[in-house]
Amino acid sequence: MYSFVVLLKNERKTMSKKNKATDEIQIRKMIDDWADALRNKNAEGVLSHYAARLVHFSLAPPLISAESDAKGLNAWFATWQGTIGYEIRDLSVTVGDDVAFSHSLNRIHGTTNGEKSDLWFRHTLCFRKIGDEWKIAHEHESVPFYMDGGFKAAVDLKP
Amino acid sequence: MYSFVVLLKNERKTMSKKNKATDEIQIRKMIDDWADALRNKNAEGVLSHYAARLVHFSLAPPLISAESDAKGLNAWFATWQGTIGYEIRDLSVTVGDDVAFSHSLNRIHGTTNGEKSDLWFRHTLCFRKIGDEWKIAHEHESVPFYMDGGFKAAVDLKP
Repeated sequence: MYSFVVLLKNERKTMSKKNKATDEIQIRKMIDDWADALRNKNAEGVLSHYAARLVHFSLAPPLISAESDAKGLNAWFATWQGTIGYEIRDLSVTVGDDVAFSHSLNRIHGTTNGEKSDLWFRHTLCFRKIGDEWKIAHEHESVPFYMDGGFKAAVDLKP
Repeated sequence: MYSFVVLLKNERKTMSKKNKATDEIQIRKMIDDWADALRNKNAEGVLSHYAARLVHFSLAPPLISAESDAKGLNAWFATWQGTIGYEIRDLSVTVGDDVAFSHSLNRIHGTTNGEKSDLWFRHTLCFRKIGDEWKIAHEHESVPFYMDGGFKAAVDLKP
C-alpha cells in the first residue's frame, strides 16, 4: 500500500509538471489567437475563446458588462477604422490543473469614432479548462484613476 | 495495469471534488480575514495573505502598483477616520488544485482626507496554493470610465 501511495504521488508530480508546461503553451497560443481575432475584427473568433458564462469587467460602464455577442462586438468593431492595433506586454500565465490566470499590460490603438486613440490598460484573464480546451471565464480590463479629487481616468500612462 | 489506471483516475476525481470544496471554504475564509484586517487597519494582517511576489493593479496610478509594505499601507490607513467601511458583494470563487480566482463587487466607504467617500469597484483576486496555504498572487481593482470623451472615472456606479 505504501509503495502504491508513493507511486501515486510521484506519478502525480510528473504528470502535473508536464501538464502545466503543455497547458501554459495552449493558453499562450489561445491568447495570441484571441488577440489576432480582435485585431482583424473577427467577432466569432473572439467569442470562440469565452466560456458560456463570462463575467466581464470592461473599460466602459457598467460595473459588469452585459454578455458579449457577435452583434455587440461587430458594432464596436465598426467604430474602428481598418484593423485594430492591439499589443500585449509582460504577459504572465499561472497554470493549475483546470484553473489558470494571466495578467499583462495591453495597448489598444488606432482611429476610433474618427479620432486617434492610443491607450495602455491592465488586463487580467481567468481561465477554466472545459473538456480539453481552456476558455476565458473572467476578464478584467482597466485603467486606474487620479486621486487628486478630479476623478480623471489615467488614460495617459505608459508601462 | 488497466485497473491501476482506473483506480488512479477514480481516486483523483474523488480527491479533486473533496479538495475543491475544502479549498473554496479556505479561500472564502481567507478573503473574510483579509477584509477584516483592512477594516481594522491591521497592515500586518492584510499583508499576511499576499504571496511574496504580488502583482497589484490598484485603483490609483501607476499601472502596476509598487509592492505593498506595512509602511505604505499604514500611511494610507491614516488618511481614513476610524475604521474603514468595506463590503464584498457577489463573491464568486473558482478553485483548481493549486490555482484559483475570485471576483466580486466591493464597496469602500468612510471619511478619508476629511471627506465622505463611498465607492463601488470591481475586484479580482488570483490565488496560488503555496504549501498548504492559499495566497493572493495577483489583485486587480478598478472602476470603468465614461466613454463620452471626458475620460471621467465612473465612481458613481452601484451594483
